[in-house]
Amino acid sequence: SKYEYVKSFERDDSLLPNTWLVVRLDGKGFHKFSAAHNFEKPNDKNALDLMNQCATAVMNEINDIVLGYGESDEYRKILTTIVSLFSSNYVFHWKHYFPAKELLYPPSFDGRVILYPSDDNLRDYLSWRQADCHINNLYNTCFWALVHSGKTKSEADDILRGTVSKEKNELLFSNFNINYNKLPEMYRKGSVLIREEIEVTTVNEQGIEKTRQKKTVIVLHTDIIGEKFWKDHPEIEIIIVLNK
Amino acid sequence: SKYEYVKSFERDDSLLPNTWLVVRLDGKGFHKFSAAHNFEKPNDKNALDLMNQCATAVMNEINDIVLGYGESDEYRKILTTIVSLFSSNYVFHWKHYFPAKELLYPPSFDGRVILYPSDDNLRDYLSWRQADCHINNLYNTCFWALVHSGKTKSEADDILRGTVSKEKNELLFSNFNINYNKLPEMYRKGSVLIREEIEVTTVNEQGIEKTRQKKTVIVLHTDIIGEKFWKDHPEIEIIIVLNK
Amino acid sequence: SKYEYVKSFERDDSLLPNTWLVVRLDGKGFHKFSAAHNFEKPNDKNALDLMNQCATAVMNEINDIVLGYGESDEYRKILTTIVSLFSSNYVFHWKHYFPAKELLYPPSFDGRVILYPSDDNLRDYLSWRQADCHINNLYNTCFWALVHSGKTKSEADDILRGTVSKEKNELLFSNFNINYNKLPEMYRKGSVLIREEIEVTTVNEQGIEKTRQKKTVIVLHTDIIGEKFWKDHPEIEIIIVLNK
Amino acid sequence: SKYEYVKSFERDDSLLPNTWLVVRLDGKGFHKFSAAHNFEKPNDKNALDLMNQCATAVMNEINDIVLGYGESDEYRKILTTIVSLFSSNYVFHWKHYFPAKELLYPPSFDGRVILYPSDDNLRDYLSWRQADCHINNLYNTCFWALVHSGKTKSEADDILRGTVSKEKNELLFSNFNINYNKLPEMYRKGSVLIREEIEVTTVNEQGIEKTRQKKTVIVLHTDIIGEKFWKDHPEIEIIIVLNK
Ligand SMILES: Nc1nc2c(ncn2[C@H]2C[C@H](O)[C@@H](COP(=O)(O)OP(=O)(O)OP(=O)(O)O)O2)c(=O)[nH]1
Ligand SMILES: Nc1nc2c(ncn2[C@H]2C[C@H](O)[C@@H](COP(=O)(O)OP(=O)(O)OP(=O)(O)O)O2)c(=O)[nH]1
Ligand SMILES: Nc1nc2c(ncn2[C@H]2C[C@H](O)[C@@H](COP(=O)(O)OP(=O)(O)OP(=O)(O)O)O2)c(=O)[nH]1
Ligand SMILES: Nc1nc2c(ncn2[C@H]2C[C@H](O)[C@@H](COP(=O)(O)OP(=O)(O)OP(=O)(O)O)O2)c(=O)[nH]1
Ligand SMILES: O=P(O)(O)OP(=O)(O)OP(=O)(O)O
Ligand SMILES: O=P(O)(O)OP(=O)(O)OP(=O)(O)O
Ligand SMILES: O=P(O)(O)OP(=O)(O)OP(=O)(O)O
Ligand SMILES: O=P(O)(O)OP(=O)(O)OP(=O)(O)O
Ligand SMILES: [Mg+2]
Ligand SMILES: [Mg+2]
Ligand SMILES: [Mg+2]
Ligand SMILES: [Mg+2]
Ligand SMILES: [Mg+2]
Ligand SMILES: [Mg+2]
Ligand SMILES: [Mg+2]
Ligand SMILES: [Mg+2]
Ligand SMILES: [Mg+2]
Ligand SMILES: [Mg+2]
Ligand SMILES: [Mg+2]
Ligand SMILES: [Mg+2]
Repeated sequence: SKYEYVKSFERDDSLLPNTWLVVRLDGKGFHKFSAAHNFEKPNDKNALDLMNQCATAVMNEINDIVLGYGESDEYRKILTTIVSLFSSNYVFHWKHYFPAKELLYPPSFDGRVILYPSDDNLRDYLSWRQADCHINNLYNTCFWALVHSGKTKSEADDILRGTVSKEKNELLFSNFNINYNKLPEMYRKGSVLIREEIEVTTVNEQGIEKTRQKKTVIVLHTDIIGEKFWKDHPEIEIIIVLNK
Repeated sequence: SKYEYVKSFERDDSLLPNTWLVVRLDGKGFHKFSAAHNFEKPNDKNALDLMNQCATAVMNEINDIVLGYGESDEYRKILTTIVSLFSSNYVFHWKHYFPAKELLYPPSFDGRVILYPSDDNLRDYLSWRQADCHINNLYNTCFWALVHSGKTKSEADDILRGTVSKEKNELLFSNFNINYNKLPEMYRKGSVLIREEIEVTTVNEQGIEKTRQKKTVIVLHTDIIGEKFWKDHPEIEIIIVLNK
Repeated sequence: SKYEYVKSFERDDSLLPNTWLVVRLDGKGFHKFSAAHNFEKPNDKNALDLMNQCATAVMNEINDIVLGYGESDEYRKILTTIVSLFSSNYVFHWKHYFPAKELLYPPSFDGRVILYPSDDNLRDYLSWRQADCHINNLYNTCFWALVHSGKTKSEADDILRGTVSKEKNELLFSNFNINYNKLPEMYRKGSVLIREEIEVTTVNEQGIEKTRQKKTVIVLHTDIIGEKFWKDHPEIEIIIVLNK
Repeated sequence: SKYEYVKSFERDDSLLPNTWLVVRLDGKGFHKFSAAHNFEKPNDKNALDLMNQCATAVMNEINDIVLGYGESDEYRKILTTIVSLFSSNYVFHWKHYFPAKELLYPPSFDGRVILYPSDDNLRDYLSWRQADCHINNLYNTCFWALVHSGKTKSEADDILRGTVSKEKNELLFSNFNINYNKLPEMYRKGSVLIREEIEVTTVNEQGIEKTRQKKTVIVLHTDIIGEKFWKDHPEIEIIIVLNK
């Protein structure tokens, strides 16, 4: 039709090949959202598990996405499909993680694509996120321990202002008998999702066992700043890190 | 931290000011999705109402979005937040439109932003979509009438191949006694969502009536190719058109 | 060859259709360049005429460029070809405008493309440049009058700091007997190049006169902020403004 | 001023950090240009030396450019300044390489920036250009040998159509007694410009010799596809390859 020329206003925004593609999501107004749904402070295990479930779903679709849009590998399709999938999974799986809590309104996320040319850039990106997770969690752990013990939020902020990590660790230990390093790794390190070959054993109708390798998404809560993780997983293709 | 430099790899992709910003969503694998959920053919009223509900939710948030990201007006944030909101609303409101039907898996959408410099470009874009809606719906109405009457899908395709609109109208009328122009406008014209001032009357505690103007999202199924719509709505700011 | 895949790393950067395309050039290190070549202060007529000559040459090629790259209308080709042409013309025509002065080293220019969606945006852009030209030229005229009369550069700066236009006009008139509004329009308004139909009369071998219309580039030094210019030239396609 | 808002329409197009930045220039209408100036076929030594001179000039400025625009490292500035410098140098140095030949009109070049994330991508890019140079030059050498011996251009094309390298080498040897591998390397390999530390010895006023290292641009005509070049020059920062 004579209107079809408008299609020519679409711009091509394909991504530079041979770079690491990072997609970063950020909940919109999640302070309000986590307050509205009474998430436990400083960490709500179910809320974090739900996020990991969404990330797992994205990773299970992501081969499809990459396959489906492989030739054009367009920025917008990869980015928007991931954001969309993450969002619909969040609502879809909510009731499993919060059986007793109704979802009050649909949440949303913004997303961005960032390209990293070298392996070192990617590792530095992931280290940045994990270091950030540690700093935030240590602060939040202290903050909510103080608030739960009766301080107001602004008193808690005042007490923590200017303190270094060592002081925060001591505060937790001497005031609340919390050994920070004993807290669950999920809270301290965030979550890393990778695809790994695992052995799967099935028994067929004749009762014969069969073992084969299968790629599965696994969720780790482990240090990714040091060398060990990278020596153990030299062949990582796709990785997702969540630290809130 | 020494890792923070990785933030500098993010690219600015702000949008050209003073242009019409169109966001276009497309369901991923919706052929399969609509089959899996047994949507009525050629049009499932509930499925379309659910889409309109999602679009309404996006429009109700969109002022916020535009406000919130107004200064930076970044491409990715507007686009990804809209896609995210639409997706989570789809799952959130599913049970209202399909109380008897379980949502089998979370759907997803891809999205794109297109900029149109002039009012005429925007009108041509919307006309393109509405003309497309008409062509598709006329075809689908014939196709499913034939299939419901006992033809196979490939027979139906063969019968329709090469026919012009007039012939399709006649086929519907003489074979199925369907007057195409009497079918619901939602199916033939798609849906247009605009924000309009409507009069709202409230009664306060003293029983006194108060009437005020309030901006509300309304859903229209009307011609937007001709002049009339644009004369009636000269001040449209934000508009969403859905035609599947 | 197996190396050819590297071509796929080139990104498409085509421009949004239906917008005004402005290309803006800026001499690199032209303070030093104009000092090295002893340009007259505050304005060197030959240096400005040379710039206009280069712009004319670009405009004479520009139909070709737009024609040649019309389908792809790629950003880089239009931009870089214009910058390249302007630069080589500058060196090529130097000796015509400065017959007694050797070009000491090859100058260079950076260039940028800016898109303006509406006619008003374009007019505002051009008004911005012409207003800038006026402000700069008034200042420079005062500055160099003071310096030529024996002040040092920093004394001249001190005298002018904080003065408004009216005070600068008075300073010129009372101290140097210069009526600023009588100075050549090229210095006060900059140059605008447009293509205009002019009548060309030729005499053939039989001595018969023949008159025809021909599109020619003309250089104007006139106000483009007010309405008059735009009423007189409603059909401008390509325009170049130089104001230093 | 109220017009200044138009500056906000400029888009940021900074380049992805930590990638190899390749700038590729292409003469506009150089078939016509080389015909108009009677360049020797298949290779005009002066024309190639002039190109190398321009590339050298760009490399001598390029530290400045990178320094000057280092923070913003904007796409357009690096690209357009290089194109501009190359163009003005071409006209500036013309008379040195063609003292007896007048430059008839100013030439122009288009330019593009391409980013390569890995060292291997860069090497493949350079290998692609050098392989291309070889293929073109072998063909052109045969073509012009045939034309100079009295064939028409279309006869020459017919003879060469479908021949492989070995056949072209034999044609040159048996018909024209040309050993292709003995032709100047500049024609067969193109030119590579690198910056190298060389020893410079100066004698001061007291007659005392002083030797120091100095970074200088040198022009090589050598294989860059194999390992040797890269072993000999592990620390290349900036490289320009010209092969026509
Ligand atoms: N684990 C945990 N996370 C929390 C808690 N309170 C807030 N958060 C998370 C939710 C959000 O992802 C994040 C808030 O940081 P943001 O800067 O993204 O703020 P918010 O999402 O409210 O606003 P935004 O729309 O992103 O600008 O912190 C908490 O008590 N525990
Ligand atoms: N109203 C209506 N829409 C249908 C029916 N069957 C399919 N559709 C819609 C759903 C989709 O939006 C659209 C299918 O077109 P697409 O080209 O987007 O295909 P699909 O979504 O399957 O694949 P994609 O992942 O987008 O490449 O048609 C139907 O029976 N009735
Ligand atoms: N007409 C005139 N123009 C002058 C005079 N002195 C300098 N200019 C011009 C030459 C330049 O285009 C401009 C200098 O402004 P810029 O901000 O572009 O500085 P410049 O080119 O030196 O440095 P850049 O490499 O562009 O950062 O002013 C003068 O005495 N008369
Ligand atoms: N060394 C040499 N180069 C030649 C000869 N004839 C043409 N060339 C070069 C000049 C040009 O750089 C190139 C022509 O290839 P292009 O595809 O760039 O064509 P041209 O520049 O004419 O058109 P364009 O404006 O780039 O589309 O070949 C020749 O006899 N010897
Ligand atoms: O949103 P923040 O504060 O977590 O920080 P950011 O997401 O890196 O910044 P922005 O959203 O402005 O890109
Ligand atoms: O996906 P289609 O077939 O509706 O058509 P499109 O979305 O305009 O094309 P693409 O998804 O390839 O941009
Ligand atoms: O270079 P200036 O100072 O004339 O100002 P600009 O060119 O608008 O700024 P930039 O060169 O930094 O884009
Ligand atoms: O111009 P060519 O034919 O040498 O090939 P190219 O420059 O790679 O192609 P284009 O100019 O169309 O980008
Ligand atoms: Mg955040
Ligand atoms: Mg953010
Ligand atoms: Mg957030
Ligand atoms: Mg579609
Ligand atoms: Mg599509
Ligand atoms: Mg679809
Ligand atoms: Mg300037
Ligand atoms: Mg500048
Ligand atoms: Mg300058
Ligand atoms: Mg070429
Ligand atoms: Mg080309
Ligand atoms: Mg060429």
